[in-house]
Amino acid sequence: MPSRGTSGSPRGYIVPVGGAENKDGDRPIMRRFVRIAGGEEARIVIIPTASELEVKGERYVELFEDLMVESAISLPMDERSDAFLDKNLRVLERATAVFLTGGNQLRLSTILGGTPVAQMLRRLNADGVHIGGTSAGAAIIPEHMIAGGPSGATPRADGVILAPGLGLINRIVIDQHFRQRDRIGRLLSAVSLNPFAIGVGLDEDTAVFINRDNVFEVVGSGGATVIDPTNLDYSSMDSARPGQAVSLIGLKLHVLAEGARYDIESRTAIAPEREPAKV
Amino acid sequence: MPSRGTSGSPRGYIVPVGGAENKDGDRPIMRRFVRIAGGEEARIVIIPTASELEVKGERYVELFEDLMVESAISLPMDERSDAFLDKNLRVLERATAVFLTGGNQLRLSTILGGTPVAQMLRRLNADGVHIGGTSAGAAIIPEHMIAGGPSGATPRADGVILAPGLGLINRIVIDQHFRQRDRIGRLLSAVSLNPFAIGVGLDEDTAVFINRDNVFEVVGSGGATVIDPTNLDYSSMDSARPGQAVSLIGLKLHVLAEGARYDIESRTAIAPEREPAKV
Repeated sequence: MPSRGTSGSPRGYIVPVGGAENKDGDRPIMRRFVRIAGGEEARIVIIPTASELEVKGERYVELFEDLMVESAISLPMDERSDAFLDKNLRVLERATAVFLTGGNQLRLSTILGGTPVAQMLRRLNADGVHIGGTSAGAAIIPEHMIAGGPSGATPRADGVILAPGLGLINRIVIDQHFRQRDRIGRLLSAVSLNPFAIGVGLDEDTAVFINRDNVFEVVGSGGATVIDPTNLDYSSMDSARPGQAVSLIGLKLHVLAEGARYDIESRTAIAPEREPAKV
Repeated sequence: MPSRGTSGSPRGYIVPVGGAENKDGDRPIMRRFVRIAGGEEARIVIIPTASELEVKGERYVELFEDLMVESAISLPMDERSDAFLDKNLRVLERATAVFLTGGNQLRLSTILGGTPVAQMLRRLNADGVHIGGTSAGAAIIPEHMIAGGPSGATPRADGVILAPGLGLINRIVIDQHFRQRDRIGRLLSAVSLNPFAIGVGLDEDTAVFINRDNVFEVVGSGGATVIDPTNLDYSSMDSARPGQAVSLIGLKLHVLAEGARYDIESRTAIAPEREPAKV
């Protein structure tokens, strides 16, 4: 369950990104993230733990500094003991936003899971600090994290590996590099295991900005694929043998491009406003 | 529009196969096809035109003969003039079933389109002859044929190339090698161009047997992905620029594995009967 805030301020944005966000051109996702984080007053802490490459955090420091934030700090934590250190908690406490880089989501969850840093991330978000993550950093955001699974369009009985995530939100399951790695089958598998959650598949260079009311807006050049199992009439997931194809009847599907929104609570997709016709 | 029959007998089965059907083991798709075609009294004509490989037709002759049909004949037609020859029409006229092999669906449509052979295939099916096809041979079956398009999960403004097909059925659009070649984006693109048709994505080694009432049953080891745009609330397909991601709100999605059925007329998926629990 998401943490309850103590400060009385509304929850911060939750911003999963599908990976490979634009870093050289318009950078619409990074710009929007900086804007919600406070613009010139943004203090962004980068957690590069998903990757074993030391340079990854520094890359994002440069990116955020280039967008004129007040400060951008990389906070490497390579062992669980790092996530217990007071000095690291003190760095996090000053952030207006936290960004989790890509890499391996199981590295993120095994190093941070259950530590004071993970608890603080939940509390900070509840108290109004915005938390984003790309690729593995997006996958770990929800309560139930997709840790692995084969690619392909068809859900299978063993089509997805789930693990506990950071738990900032429990109503959606996130998959990333969605179109690029052909992951609709494993997202369908995840949603059909227990249809209480909505599946959100994020293409590369595509983010959803989830506001305090759990309404999100799509930003970026790809699509967010929403699988809503509310009216699932039938699933053979319980009786299928490993590797066997599964029948799923009655799913709702939306594909949302930039500007489209989705209300996670009411499970309603909202079309983008029409651009005025260009003559 | 599908042809109207002249004999008063019900329409034959229409059997699109997703490609790479099992040919060595149980061969469930081929066996079922032979059974509906008359079993030991089946006279099957194979049209290998989609492929430039002479051997392709002969391969299916062996496959069908191995399943103990009365006759299996390959009818090579490599030029349009072949599809005007009386001797070829006479071979087709004796068939209880016709099978179109895989290859390139544009080769099929450019050689057969508008010829007496194409007209005869439509009339034969209307009069009770069963027509199946695999891969390219499946794609060409409907009125609107998917001729090409990029792979990936996200529909794009230029995400699919449509061409006129054989026109045996006009209520569905078929894509094949569905899971294996990651084609949900182009099927979504096809369906959203004009939401009157249902999209059916067939995995390899997976067929739908469409009966005279336009109810189909899934046979094989993969899934049939059904995209039903009946309740499409919003599509940005009309205003999207080439390559741009498209928003589609309110699609229905079913994934159907072996034994599940779908009523194309009422747009209703029907769950397979539960197997008795194995203790």
